[in-house]
Amino acid sequence: MILDSTDTICALSTANGMGAIALIRVSGSNAFPITTSIFSKKIENQETHTVHFGTIKNGLEIIDEVVVSVFKNPASFTGENVVEIACHGSVFIQQEILKLLLSKGCRLAKAGEFSMRAFANGKFDLSQAEAISDLISSTTEASHKLAMQQMRGGFSDEINGLREELVNFASLIELELDFSEEDVEFADRTQLNELLLRITSKLTSLIDSFSFGNAIKNGVPISIIGAPNSGKSTLLNRFLKEEKAIVSNIAGTTRDIVEDEIVIEGIKYRFIDTAGIRDTENEIEKIGIQRAIEKAGKSAIILYLFDANGDLEQVKREFELLKSQITDETIDVIWVANKIDLLSDKSLLGGLESIQISASENENIGELTNKIIEITNSKQAEQQQVIVTNVRHYEALTKANQAIREVTHALEMGIPGDLVAVDIRQALHFLGEITGEISTDELLGNIFSKFCIGK
Amino acid sequence: MILDSTDTICALSTANGMGAIALIRVSGSNAFPITTSIFSKKIENQETHTVHFGTIKNGLEIIDEVVVSVFKNPASFTGENVVEIACHGSVFIQQEILKLLLSKGCRLAKAGEFSMRAFANGKFDLSQAEAISDLISSTTEASHKLAMQQMRGGFSDEINGLREELVNFASLIELELDFSEEDVEFADRTQLNELLLRITSKLTSLIDSFSFGNAIKNGVPISIIGAPNSGKSTLLNRFLKEEKAIVSNIAGTTRDIVEDEIVIEGIKYRFIDTAGIRDTENEIEKIGIQRAIEKAGKSAIILYLFDANGDLEQVKREFELLKSQITDETIDVIWVANKIDLLSDKSLLGGLESIQISASENENIGELTNKIIEITNSKQAEQQQVIVTNVRHYEALTKANQAIREVTHALEMGIPGDLVAVDIRQALHFLGEITGEISTDELLGNIFSKFCIGK
Repeated sequence: MILDSTDTICALSTANGMGAIALIRVSGSNAFPITTSIFSKKIENQETHTVHFGTIKNGLEIIDEVVVSVFKNPASFTGENVVEIACHGSVFIQQEILKLLLSKGCRLAKAGEFSMRAFANGKFDLSQAEAISDLISSTTEASHKLAMQQMRGGFSDEINGLREELVNFASLIELELDFSEEDVEFADRTQLNELLLRITSKLTSLIDSFSFGNAIKNGVPISIIGAPNSGKSTLLNRFLKEEKAIVSNIAGTTRDIVEDEIVIEGIKYRFIDTAGIRDTENEIEKIGIQRAIEKAGKSAIILYLFDANGDLEQVKREFELLKSQITDETIDVIWVANKIDLLSDKSLLGGLESIQISASENENIGELTNKIIEITNSKQAEQQQVIVTNVRHYEALTKANQAIREVTHALEMGIPGDLVAVDIRQALHFLGEITGEISTDELLGNIFSKFCIGK
Repeated sequence: MILDSTDTICALSTANGMGAIALIRVSGSNAFPITTSIFSKKIENQETHTVHFGTIKNGLEIIDEVVVSVFKNPASFTGENVVEIACHGSVFIQQEILKLLLSKGCRLAKAGEFSMRAFANGKFDLSQAEAISDLISSTTEASHKLAMQQMRGGFSDEINGLREELVNFASLIELELDFSEEDVEFADRTQLNELLLRITSKLTSLIDSFSFGNAIKNGVPISIIGAPNSGKSTLLNRFLKEEKAIVSNIAGTTRDIVEDEIVIEGIKYRFIDTAGIRDTENEIEKIGIQRAIEKAGKSAIILYLFDANGDLEQVKREFELLKSQITDETIDVIWVANKIDLLSDKSLLGGLESIQISASENENIGELTNKIIEITNSKQAEQQQVIVTNVRHYEALTKANQAIREVTHALEMGIPGDLVAVDIRQALHFLGEITGEISTDELLGNIFSKFCIGK
C-alpha cells in the first residue's frame, strides 16, 4: 500500500543548503516520544501549538540549541502528532539531527509524504494537495494566484458542486431501474436535459480555461512568425534584453528561466523564434516552415512580423497561407511592421492594421509590449473565476464531459436507463478522481512523488 | 551608531531558494502590530511561545497560509518581541511576504543584525555570538564540536575567570597608588608574581591551542614534500580519490570543498601538493622550492615522500636541508617510502623509520591514513578542554599576554605602580574585547557583518 501511515517520518522541510535556521519536520504516532528521547524537555507534557527552547543531545554530546514546535493530532498539517525542530542552519547539524531521529525509530519521509498523510486524514482534497505543490513552484504573481485559489478550495467546490448534481441525477435514473416493470419516469427528461446542458456548459468552460491556465503556469506562448530576414531574432533579443531587468526583480527566479522566457507585469511569457516562412521547393526548408506553422498553431498570440519596406501584397498572401493551416480560432494575431526606421513614407502602411516598430533601433517596442499585455488581460477577463491549470484535471474533465455527452446522446436515442446509468457513473468517476474521492495507489503515487521532500 | 535597535527588522532566515517551508523572522518593538496588520489573527493577544495558523493577506488578496510563532520580549532570540512566519517555500511567496512587511514599516535586517541585537540585550557575549556563526558554517564533527563548546559559553567562562583575577590584581595595585606616600604594599609581590605566572600559563595554553583550533576549523594542513618524481601528486590523487566517498557521506558539504580538502573521521584535512625539492641552480625552480618549504613550515604534518628505490643517503641529506629551514618544532613529520612495488629487497629500507607505500598501486595507503589520524588525535588529546579557533581571539589573547609580560617585567624592574597599572588595564582591555565587555562600533560591525542575513 502506498500510504504507510504506521511509521513516524522525518525530513528537512526548508531549502537545501546552509541558512541561519533550518526546519526539520517529524510526523506520526511516535513523533512525541522520539523527539523527547533527544530533546531536553518532555514533549508529551506540552500543550499543542506551543514552542520550546532546549537542546538536542546525542547521549551526552550537545548537537544544537533548538526551538521545537508541538502540534497535537488532529490540529497539525498532517493531522498526526507533529514536531517541528528549528535548528541552526548548518548542513552538518541538519544531518546530525536527522541521523539521530532515524536512530530513534523515525524513517526518512518520501517526497510529498507529509501532504499525502494530510490528504489521507481529510485535511484537504487531492486538487488542493496538488495546489500546494504548484504554490511552492510558482514564480509569478499570476501562477501564484491560481495555485492559491485552488489550494483555498475554489476549484474543489466547483467540482464537488458538479458532482453532487450528477449524483442526484444518477439516483433518480437508478430508482427508475428498480421500478422498471412499472415504466415510471422519476427523472423528468426535460429537467434532466436542462441539467445535462448546464453541466456540459460548466465542464466545457473549465476545460476551455485550461489552455489559459496552463499558459499562466508554464508561460503564455507567443510565436514570432514571418518571412526570412523580417527581423524575428532581432525582435526576440530585443524582448529578452528589454525585459530581463523585470525578471531579475524577483530574486531567485532567474535560475529557473529559460533563454526565451520573460515575466511582464506578473505574467510569464514564452517567446518562440521560428524559421522564416516563404514559398520554397527546398524540402528541408519546407520541414522547418511546417514546424514554424505548427508552433504558431499552439501559441496564444502570434506576432506576424514583416518588413515594412517589402512587398505588402506578398505579406498578405503569405499570411493567408499561414492562416489556412491554423485551426485554433482563439489565437490572437498581432501584425507587426518592422524596420520602419528605413521607411520614408509611412502612409504606405495605411491599409494594414499593424504596430510599427524598429526592432534594431528599439522603436515602439513598448507599444507592442502593451498590446501583448492588453490581449492577455482580456483573455484573463474572459475566464470565469475558476481556472484549470493541471493537465490531470484537464484530462479528467475532458473524459467526464465525454461521458456526459454520451448520456445526452443515450437519452436522445431512448436507450435504457441501466446503460445511461453506466455513463453517469463514468462521469462521476472522472470528477471524483480530481478531488481524490476516487483514488488509486498509482494515482496517489504519481501525484505525491512530484512533491518535494519535506512537504 | 552601528546598533540601531529602534527599527523593526525582518529577513528570510532559512536557506535561499525553494523548499517546502521557509521561515521569515521579524524582530523589534513593532513586530506584533506589523504582523497583525497582515495576518488573520491579532498577535498582541497571544501568549508567548505559541504558534498560530492563519493567512497572510495583502489587502483582500491571500498571499499564503502560514504558521506564525510568537516570542515575547525578553523571552526571544533577540530579547525583543519576535515573530517567526513559516510560509510555503516558494521564492515568490518569500519575496511577497517580505515586501509586505517592508510596506508596513519593517526594514530588511542587515547581516547578523538579529544576533547583534541579542548581544546588545545581553542574550550572549561576543565570543558566543561568533560561535553561532561558526556553528552554522561548520561542516565537520570536530569543527561543530568546537563551535558548540564556544557557544555554550565554555570559552567565555575561561576568559572571564582570567579577567576577574586580573581585576583583583589591578584593584590592589591601584589601591597602593592612593596610599603611595605611605609606601604600603597591599599586593603581596610574591602572590602577585604567582598569579601572573598562572595567568601567563593559561593565556599561553589558549594561544597555543589556536594553531590546532584553527586547523580543525579550516582543515589540518598536511604538506606532501619530496624530490621531483617521488610521486607526490599520485599520492595526493590517491588520498582525494580514496576519501571522496567519505566526504560525500555528508550531503551538501561537497560543493564547499576545494580540490584538496577531505574529511576523515570527522576532521577536515587540507592536503597540499608542493614542488619537488632538489639542489638546483635554476633560479625559477629555486623560488618554487622555497615556496614548498614555506608551506611545509606552516603545516601541522609533513609527509616526507621519497622513492624507495632511490639513493637513501641523498634522501637523508635533503631532509636535513629541509629541516634546517623549518623553525616550528611542533610539526610532525612522517617519512613515506613510495614505489615499494618496484622494490625487490625491502630490507634496504631497514635503517629508516618510514611507512612503506605504493601510491600508484594503492598499497598501504590505509596505514598512512591511520598514522595521520593517530597524530591528529594525539594533538587533540594534548589540548586542554578550551580551544581557541577565532583569529580575533587569538590576537587579543596574544596582546593580553604581551601586556602581562610587561607587568611581570615592570615588577621585576621595580617600576612604579601607576605604570604597572597601565599595563594591567591594557591586558584587561584585550580580554574584554573577546567577550564584548569592551567593544567598539567598528569591532561589532566587523564581527556581525560576516554573519549571514537572517541570523
